[in-house]
Order: sequence, then structure tokens, then C-alpha cells
Amino acid sequence: MEMKFLINLIESGSISVPSILLDYYNQLGLNEQECMMLIHVHAFLSKGDDFPTFDNLAARMTLDETECAELLRRLIQRGYLSIIQKNDNNIYSEAYSLQPLWEKLLRTSYSQVVESSSKSNDE
Amino acid sequence: MEMKFLINLIESGSISVPSILLDYYNQLGLNEQECMMLIHVHAFLSKGDDFPTFDNLAARMTLDETECAELLRRLIQRGYLSIIQKNDNNIYSEAYSLQPLWEKLLRTSYSQVVESSSKSNDE
Amino acid sequence: MEMKFLINLIESGSISVPSILLDYYNQLGLNEQECMMLIHVHAFLSKGDDFPTFDNLAARMTLDETECAELLRRLIQRGYLSIIQKNDNNIYSEAYSLQPLWEKLLRTSYSQVVESSSKSNDE
Amino acid sequence: MEMKFLINLIESGSISVPSILLDYYNQLGLNEQECMMLIHVHAFLSKGDDFPTFDNLAARMTLDETECAELLRRLIQRGYLSIIQKNDNNIYSEAYSLQPLWEKLLRTSYSQVVESSSKSNDE
Repeated sequence: MEMKFLINLIESGSISVPSILLDYYNQLGLNEQECMMLIHVHAFLSKGDDFPTFDNLAARMTLDETECAELLRRLIQRGYLSIIQKNDNNIYSEAYSLQPLWEKLLRTSYSQVVESSSKSNDE
Repeated sequence: MEMKFLINLIESGSISVPSILLDYYNQLGLNEQECMMLIHVHAFLSKGDDFPTFDNLAARMTLDETECAELLRRLIQRGYLSIIQKNDNNIYSEAYSLQPLWEKLLRTSYSQVVESSSKSNDE
Repeated sequence: MEMKFLINLIESGSISVPSILLDYYNQLGLNEQECMMLIHVHAFLSKGDDFPTFDNLAARMTLDETECAELLRRLIQRGYLSIIQKNDNNIYSEAYSLQPLWEKLLRTSYSQVVESSSKSNDE
Repeated sequence: MEMKFLINLIESGSISVPSILLDYYNQLGLNEQECMMLIHVHAFLSKGDDFPTFDNLAARMTLDETECAELLRRLIQRGYLSIIQKNDNNIYSEAYSLQPLWEKLLRTSYSQVVESSSKSNDE
């Protein structure tokens, strides 16, 4: 039992969260609750589950299913998240994509690097 | 410039967040804002900076410095975070420790594994 | 194109490798080539692909398919890796499991912690 | 003791290894032993220790100190690793940098993406 728990602890392991998300979400206009939702979606995606249910998400959050659905809808509407159509051997399914989020984060961090670099050139 | 930005992106890299935190924080009585604060502290710790300032944290969150200080104080009071004294070659300094958080998470997840395992034995 | 490459870079992201593997593989009698093979298997597993082909592995290593097959066979024989039967809705399939490796690593690291702690109590 | 071991297990945690390294090291002309050495250096760097000793590395590898020194020297010579001078408040010190490695990996993966994309445009 003990050993099973320990092995499970290692196998469940860790989720790699891009530093760029932790460093810039607030500059993108996201608050902590919205960022946590995106981290949850990212955690499911990175484990190979690309369309977690509202129930999956609600089980891990302080939000109930309706609130999860509503929060996801707003994140999609504001362009941080999208739903894409997948086609695996002619089986069509839906999946969340965080590409819009990564693109916004890349643009924000890039523009800041350029800005700070042009400032240091001025000096 | 381009290459520098890309290398920086890889070097800033990712923070490994234990899945146990994402899976159980809500059962510990933490909300998303509190969990994000703990993830930020964890991110600083894992990069070797064990006493980020209120300013460091406020720069990444939707909270200002006073609100960060207040949130950290409450997390310490409720036993999710502690401040420890370090002694490096007789240089004393303070550091945040997330040991209380990991201990609570381990106890919660362990009790659930035991419970679900005893349930399945009953069947 | 640029942006697509960058997003891909973030989405392919990072693999979380347990520190316990990096710290103790040599004490387990594994060499660097064997450890890299186990890291590759771990990387596939953690992305949700639990039975990479010899070809998948050979494409990332300096070994060809036959050598990969041979190395995997030896790792299984020596008890670092196993192949398990999975049953998803009555669809049976095979999957690699690293549970034997984690168990060995846990036992090794635990015995060392106990030893070093009993030593420090003796002083 | 048990709890201390478990907390330590979580705190020692995981090292985030960029997928780009696992996917392309062999195309860069690196073998598994060389890749493991670079992963070890990366692990030290990402924990904030930017100049591990030969002894630190030898303790984790199947190589002794002299072989570690020799391997590092060859990796520097072949342009996968560099030693940089750091200046922290006028305290000068040396540190390993993996920037040459990331640059090579980025160039290799980028050229392959461009190539495969131009191929698919030809069809």
C-alpha cells in the first residue's frame, strides 16, 4: 500500500507549466482564477486528455460545473482558448487548444524584451 | 535578437508543479487565488530564490504589494506556508518553506487512496 | 511560420523527469545509455503514448531499431521496466510501465536517507 | 521520518527537460552519455547551482571525476557548452551556460520544420 502510494506519487508527478504563463498572465488581463483554469486545461492536455469535461475541471476547482462552463466560455470569447476539430482516422472529436494563449504570451514577452533592449541601447 | 529571445524562452523554461497540488488544493480549503500565490512561491523556490519580496510577487499577480503581504500572512497563519531561518556559513537569513503545504496535501491524498482502496475491498 | 514554430516550441514544452532518477540511476547499476532509454520511455508515457514503437525510440537515439529492442529486453529482464496488459472498454493492449524502476529508486533513496539519519543520530 | 522522506521527495521534485533536447540530440551528433551529462548540468543550473564540481557530477554518473572533466572539456570544444564569467556585485565567478546547446537545437528543429512545411506545400 505504502509503496503503491509512493509510486503513484511519482507517476502522477509534476506538470510543466511554462514560466512565460506565470510571469505574464497578469499583463494579459487574466486574474488568478482565470490563470488557474488555464493551468488545469494545460495539465489535462499535457497528459494526453484534450477535452476534459466540466465535471473533471469542477472536481479540482472551487467552481461548480456551471461556473466552469461559464468561465471557459468567457476565456474562449476573449481569445485565450479555442476549441478545435480533430480528425483521427476519420473519427472527429473536439479538443481544447491553448495556442491563442501562447501566442498572446509570446507577443507580450517579445515586445517587452524589445522595449527593454532598445532602452538599454539608448543609455 | 530573435535567437536571444528564443534561447531565453527555453532557459526561462517551465516550472514543475506537483500534480498533487493541482488535484487537491480545493479539498484543502484553498481557492484559486491562494493556490496561484503558492505556485508563485514554489516557482521562486525552485529557481533557487527562497525569499521573493512582496514586490517580486505583486509584479506577477493582480494583487498589489500590500495585498500580497496580507495573503502570505493568512497562508502562514492557516498553516500552508512557513518562514524558516537559514544558516549558510554563519550568514543567517529567512526563507519561505512549503513543507506545511506538501504535508497537508500528502495526508489528504493518502487518506483518499486508503478510503477508496478499502471501499473497493468491501465490494 | 515564425509564430507557429514558437507556439510549437512551447506546446512540445518540457518533460518532467523525477530528480530521484537523475540522482540515483548509477547506484541502481544503470549506465547513461540505459538511463536515457528510460527517460525516452518516460517521456512517451507522460505524453499519453504508453507503447512507443522501436522505431519511435530509434528515431531519437543513437541506436537502431534492433539495438533498441535488445536494450528494452535487457531492461525488462533486469527488472527496471515491465510490459502490462491494459483493458480499455474491452479493448486489450500492451503498455510499458516504469513502476519497477520507481520502486527500486524509492527503496534506494529511502535506505540512504535512513542510513544517513541514523549516522547523524550516532554523533 | 516517513513524512520527512515524502516531503523531501516532493521538494526534490522534477527537473523540466526541454523536449527539443530529447527529440534532437542525436541529430546534433550527441550520444546518450553526452546527452545525460548535459541533462545533469541543466539540472544543476535550473536549481540555481550554476557551477557544479566534477565531483558533484561524478557522484551521479558512471564516470569518475577525471572522465567527467574530460567529457565536459570535449563538449565545450565541440560547442555544446560554454563557461561564462559572472559578476554579482563585483564578485566574479564562473558558470556553465547551455546557450550554445539551445541555439544548435533551435536551428536544427527550425530547419526541419521549414523543410517539412515546404515539402507539404509542394504536394
